[in-house]
Amino acid sequence: MDVNVLVFNDFETLDAFGPVEILGCVADYRLRYVSMNGGLISSKQGVKVDTEKINSDTLSGILLIPGGSGTRTLVTDDVFIDLLRNMVLNSQYCLTVCTGSALLAKTGLIKSQKATSNKKAFEWVKSVDEDVEWMSQARWVVDGKFYTSSGVSAGMDMVLGFIHDQLGIEKAREIADHIEYIWNEDPHHDPFALIN
Amino acid sequence: MDVNVLVFNDFETLDAFGPVEILGCVADYRLRYVSMNGGLISSKQGVKVDTEKINSDTLSGILLIPGGSGTRTLVTDDVFIDLLRNMVLNSQYCLTVCTGSALLAKTGLIKSQKATSNKKAFEWVKSVDEDVEWMSQARWVVDGKFYTSSGVSAGMDMVLGFIHDQLGIEKAREIADHIEYIWNEDPHHDPFALIN
Repeated sequence: MDVNVLVFNDFETLDAFGPVEILGCVADYRLRYVSMNGGLISSKQGVKVDTEKINSDTLSGILLIPGGSGTRTLVTDDVFIDLLRNMVLNSQYCLTVCTGSALLAKTGLIKSQKATSNKKAFEWVKSVDEDVEWMSQARWVVDGKFYTSSGVSAGMDMVLGFIHDQLGIEKAREIADHIEYIWNEDPHHDPFALIN
Repeated sequence: MDVNVLVFNDFETLDAFGPVEILGCVADYRLRYVSMNGGLISSKQGVKVDTEKINSDTLSGILLIPGGSGTRTLVTDDVFIDLLRNMVLNSQYCLTVCTGSALLAKTGLIKSQKATSNKKAFEWVKSVDEDVEWMSQARWVVDGKFYTSSGVSAGMDMVLGFIHDQLGIEKAREIADHIEYIWNEDPHHDPFALIN
């Protein structure tokens, strides 16, 4: 199964590469790094990543959407959002981290569904689509094929939760041990809902 | 201050980009991505990163050395190790993650000093230089200008420890909260020493 990691300028580095580290531990998953026009894309932290140009018609598998300051302008980019909508429709699963949830919401595909996002940017994310059932206290939220997570590091906990659902708790724990990650296994444990 | 992130083919993605996420939160740190010959470098998880060619004579600041399967051949590459030795000597601080500690050990610059590494690869790392005082149970270890961490995710805890030492505990906690990261603040708490 393909894992399509969608990046754009000023994406948040760990939003993408925390999940990538974990998804890369599953032998059956093939990681691909894609962007709207292909070529080098720079993260907020200046990591320049080489990407393939998206072909949203032939894309399938898992779609990972990071957040980051780049989302603030992308929600108003109709060409990008139309492309993203097609990507989401053609993906078996769609995983978002942090303000990546705002991009997903803007496609209109999660109306009346449960979702979460970064707690610091929560009011802005909610404003993108008030019809989503935004969960203000959740490390991550699952609703159908959609997995949405809280800020940055929460993406790693969510992706381990996704592995749990796909391949069982033992596989998820094996990966966490392998990368020496202290996994917060409980999606309801969200210490940052009150802090931020 | 420059933060030079040294990458090489088959580096472990999160070893580099977990710390990058955190170091990128410090306004005074300028992140640079460097490799022996410059150009595109591919991580173990297929992330192709654009890099600058190292000039080890003019380099200064913080040096970050990730681990990954690429270290297994690099420890036998004398040209690389000579370059790395010069980089380490010219850096104010040197931070290693996982088997990045093996590369540092191979330079001969941490003989009789305390260090740690990934627990799964520990015997191999020890064999690179038996004169290092290898700590078998530690999330991370500080000895002079050297910060060495356990496997993959431990690099994030270590870098927050580094921020603590440089800028105070409040700054470290502020960054952890900002990226919604549940920081393991205790360098002695190493749950993976027994598991792996």
